[in-house]
Amino acid sequence: MPRTVVVALGGNAITRSGETGTHAEQTANARAMARAVCRMREAGWNVVIVHGNGPQVGNLAIQQEEAAHRVPEMPLFWLGAMTEGQLGCLITLALHEAGGGRLPGVVAVVTHMVVDPADPAFARPTKPIGPFLDEETAQRQASERGWTVGEDAGRGYRRLVASPEPGRIVEIDDIRALVDRGSVVVAAGGGGIPVVQDGHVLTGVDAVVDKDLAAEKLASTLGADVLMLVTGVPRVMLDYGTPQAREVGEMTTDEALGHAAAGQFPEGSMGPKMRAATRFVQATGGTAVVTDVEHACSSLEGGPPGAVGTRIVPGGSVTTRIVPPSSVGAAS
Amino acid sequence: MPRTVVVALGGNAITRSGETGTHAEQTANARAMARAVCRMREAGWNVVIVHGNGPQVGNLAIQQEEAAHRVPEMPLFWLGAMTEGQLGCLITLALHEAGGGRLPGVVAVVTHMVVDPADPAFARPTKPIGPFLDEETAQRQASERGWTVGEDAGRGYRRLVASPEPGRIVEIDDIRALVDRGSVVVAAGGGGIPVVQDGHVLTGVDAVVDKDLAAEKLASTLGADVLMLVTGVPRVMLDYGTPQAREVGEMTTDEALGHAAAGQFPEGSMGPKMRAATRFVQATGGTAVVTDVEHACSSLEGGPPGAVGTRIVPGGSVTTRIVPPSSVGAAS
Repeated sequence: MPRTVVVALGGNAITRSGETGTHAEQTANARAMARAVCRMREAGWNVVIVHGNGPQVGNLAIQQEEAAHRVPEMPLFWLGAMTEGQLGCLITLALHEAGGGRLPGVVAVVTHMVVDPADPAFARPTKPIGPFLDEETAQRQASERGWTVGEDAGRGYRRLVASPEPGRIVEIDDIRALVDRGSVVVAAGGGGIPVVQDGHVLTGVDAVVDKDLAAEKLASTLGADVLMLVTGVPRVMLDYGTPQAREVGEMTTDEALGHAAAGQFPEGSMGPKMRAATRFVQATGGTAVVTDVEHACSSLEGGPPGAVGTRIVPGGSVTTRIVPPSSVGAAS
Repeated sequence: MPRTVVVALGGNAITRSGETGTHAEQTANARAMARAVCRMREAGWNVVIVHGNGPQVGNLAIQQEEAAHRVPEMPLFWLGAMTEGQLGCLITLALHEAGGGRLPGVVAVVTHMVVDPADPAFARPTKPIGPFLDEETAQRQASERGWTVGEDAGRGYRRLVASPEPGRIVEIDDIRALVDRGSVVVAAGGGGIPVVQDGHVLTGVDAVVDKDLAAEKLASTLGADVLMLVTGVPRVMLDYGTPQAREVGEMTTDEALGHAAAGQFPEGSMGPKMRAATRFVQATGGTAVVTDVEHACSSLEGGPPGAVGTRIVPGGSVTTRIVPPSSVGAAS
């Protein structure tokens, strides 16, 4: 039986900071990810990819708004669905190119995620989406369209939507069948298209499920061996931004929870990743890894000490292994 | 073994003539289609759905254009990919609602279609896409962006793109695995995302594969029993718009080819449907059906004479069965 890894890939890995998100930029960024995934396949792993979609949904929201006098605006969950098509296409083509004809299959599935309408997140929207607005525009949208708006990190106002917990992945049995036949599967993009369930009726809702938590749900439900959370840094750091800053090679779930409670992992950054990692390891006894695209594959195979990312493993004993900050660069 | 039907559904069945394509309109239209598909499932058929995307791509093209000063415009094949996500979501949710929890699975696959870069269609673009333009704008886009533009039925100018023949469906093995497990599969939406192949590298191209011909390719490759081409009328007509107009209940492939050669099936209307139907029956010995959503299921089960659409069957003998025009209404 091949082992299975679920790889969560930030939307910012496809449209990087400072880029506007042209076709050429997104294609170039997808190639780096695709090469890493193909190395995982060659090492004998089944791979499922969960991509983020923040920058892509943001651009679609601007386009909807600018053309509203000519074309009806679509609900947010449809914009999410559109990005599953667009990024599914992008990643599929990048994987075929990187795979050199050796992948048994590559397939992107339009994936829906059931969320609970009673989730407290709906009463307190926190996830900023779409473009920055000036205060006047923000207030008008709030009163005309019922949007919740809020200031985002002092850079202006944005629409805020609920970020409920992932519940059930509607297409899970189909995804499992595709993984079992050895295809690289792209699924639950952007956290999945959020729907609420009433009997057998599924209705789209304007919300955003965190893609790292969605990847955890997918990994747990599939019984994956590893959840890999790909981010912009090779390893999780403690006391980031202070003279005591240090990289972590491995920690247990109890340690991770302790560090989180001590405020080591801010929301909007490492917070959701560490929550997903801890949840996965506690639920399955498997391993979670946090690293960047460059170290994704060596982390999975178990390379030499220092050459890999941060592993989160089961257990309560204090085993936090601190590694010298230069080791990743030296070994990579 | 359950039999398999591939259902090709026009983009105009989701956004009807005179509608602007709001979320509410598209959802209501999808429900009628979903009820028909669920009746097919209940009658024991595996169902694959190929949707069109003309109105939806048109709206996205307008949105891209209106926001071009703020957000990079995306290539046409990505707009097609976006509609596979959006309409995949729409149709999936409609099927779950209509299925009442009795469907074993519903899944939309982001599908790519390999086309031949030497296809003569690339030298002579004929497929109008996107919004109508005035002559000045059309000429400017032609010179600035290398678009081919042309007048569309006296209503203004539009961008014209190539409509090459469908070649190979990249995800065919994955689609087959999903059909085999009994899921209703949405695939090759909008004719599939067109790509050209160079070795193992697939590159998106700005073209539109006819969705009826794409459905035929999918049906032939899957070994489907029936190709159903759903359109706005219950039956194919001969001498349409003349006093001799009459509905056809059944015709052979030879007859269909003869009628086509005599100009009975105009391009942009029944032409591609009859070409797809004839091609499928000749390639597989199966049956093709042309009808509307209302008669789709009774056509498939073999209802009483007069209650069904137009069947295209193998053979050369003259068996064209003309039926009284009132029979469909009376039996429906």
